[in-house]
Amino acid sequence: MIEGERAALARAITLVESSRADHRREARALIGELMAQTGKGVRVGLTGVPGVGKSTLIDQLGSNLTRNGHRVAVLAVDPSSARSGGSILGDKTRMARLAVDRNAFIRPSPASGTLGGVAARTREAILLCEAAGFDVILVETVGVGQSEAAVADLTDIFVVLLLGGAGDELQGLKKGVFELADIVAVNKADGEGRARAEAAAKEYQAALHILGSASATWKVPVLTVSGMTNLGLDRLWNEILAHRRVAEASGEWAARRQAQDVKWMHALIEERATARLRDDPAIRARLAALEAEVAASRILPEAAAEEIASMLERR
Amino acid sequence: MIEGERAALARAITLVESSRADHRREARALIGELMAQTGKGVRVGLTGVPGVGKSTLIDQLGSNLTRNGHRVAVLAVDPSSARSGGSILGDKTRMARLAVDRNAFIRPSPASGTLGGVAARTREAILLCEAAGFDVILVETVGVGQSEAAVADLTDIFVVLLLGGAGDELQGLKKGVFELADIVAVNKADGEGRARAEAAAKEYQAALHILGSASATWKVPVLTVSGMTNLGLDRLWNEILAHRRVAEASGEWAARRQAQDVKWMHALIEERATARLRDDPAIRARLAALEAEVAASRILPEAAAEEIASMLERR
Repeated sequence: MIEGERAALARAITLVESSRADHRREARALIGELMAQTGKGVRVGLTGVPGVGKSTLIDQLGSNLTRNGHRVAVLAVDPSSARSGGSILGDKTRMARLAVDRNAFIRPSPASGTLGGVAARTREAILLCEAAGFDVILVETVGVGQSEAAVADLTDIFVVLLLGGAGDELQGLKKGVFELADIVAVNKADGEGRARAEAAAKEYQAALHILGSASATWKVPVLTVSGMTNLGLDRLWNEILAHRRVAEASGEWAARRQAQDVKWMHALIEERATARLRDDPAIRARLAALEAEVAASRILPEAAAEEIASMLERR
Repeated sequence: MIEGERAALARAITLVESSRADHRREARALIGELMAQTGKGVRVGLTGVPGVGKSTLIDQLGSNLTRNGHRVAVLAVDPSSARSGGSILGDKTRMARLAVDRNAFIRPSPASGTLGGVAARTREAILLCEAAGFDVILVETVGVGQSEAAVADLTDIFVVLLLGGAGDELQGLKKGVFELADIVAVNKADGEGRARAEAAAKEYQAALHILGSASATWKVPVLTVSGMTNLGLDRLWNEILAHRRVAEASGEWAARRQAQDVKWMHALIEERATARLRDDPAIRARLAALEAEVAASRILPEAAAEEIASMLERR
């Protein structure tokens, strides 16, 4: 895998995606061994609603990068993939050029079904891709539930893709995502869409300015791009590098990764501490019943929690 | 207390604020008994940076309401109060009229020091105030950390107070808060400030429109108000009632409270399940050490979590 054998990387990711106890142990051991080779990649999170043109853009951006000597891994986080088969199919035909590019690696979303599980496996996949020598890790997600926040917690920089003149039906999906954006890119700025995209970019820029920005040192840029014509994708990459320079200089780059790791540790501890809520059938059943009781105001949350907690403590 | 004796209500809140095990048991029993009398109040969350004029506005709005036959309780959530003495002092002189109003009850923030603790005590205080016949519960907080999100989780409607022409130094504090806002009010729209407040309101309105709104049925209104001159405070109250009507009609009102209670139950279970992380000195010390190790990338989050989890399971 370290020699760049993509099939070996694929097998390693399959191992970390397995929930079998012995596989989990092997996976942890593997990642522990490889730790020194991880961390060198630029981890870029990308979100946008279905239809915004993520795949075309990633295919073009990734091809630009491999042409310039980068090795590009594309991972997906789609908690819905277990159910619906996923808004992100990971179908390599969506990324025709990258799919046959020796310096690219495409991996669909792990079909774990829970966001926490998908995020956990993706985090380990990122480390494996870095150990395998990929220096650009693109993690794509869709605007479902908390998946953007999860991806922002896995990456160094978060790019939000939008459409110009998109109707209100998209607003709901965008809600909260702007808080995570380090870069906003209005896609499909090609042909007749260009003017619409540029108008939308101006509006978003103004709105972001009024509502304030995430970082004291980084002003979120709003770009117009086209995955189809390659318009603005060099600028998009340059903004990603600029963000890295600024964040490294301010210490926010390292701080973000450190905070992510510490947050990750706490999440894992909590997961273990509350495992029996999911694993113990009796507790799980009672918890579901109590949720309904609480929602119907037939029992106080405190009393319900008390009952479950004492079930947990009985061993 | 149920007969409206404010001193009895104050003593009851002191009981729920105590962390002594026997007091906690009494508090749970008390709230359990009173449950049927709770839930009838309008729970309004209010946030704004220090200097935005929260106290003056609450004093005026509360006096308007008591004059119209309402009974108004003012609670504060300020996780910093344990340390700094608090950005919200709960100093009754800040609310000169309400402080001497027989139909008002003012309670400073519990000085628990952790946001979770403060929120827990405040949630119980809200229930006690409702049982004591207060039909309007104003819960104020300041833009520190996650306190707004905590207050939004305790209330039916969340009002964000802003200033007109406020410089960028306020932007950071506002970040993320717009996602929680059901109503935005630009305060100090009086004298020379009026034009500035109205201009700011227009800007915020446009920005909120572009970035989308939280509810499918409620468009967040942006008002100009003055706590000093009482300008717009009747409209503010009418918008609160309008939001309640809309949310009751759409079912979002009941759904929000149900979701809050279920979320609350889970938080309490988690708190119990992870209590030893805080209570066991050996585990607490090791956790702090491991946090530093993880932040310094000297150990994997997985390995650190593994160690703590096995300490937790050893009993």
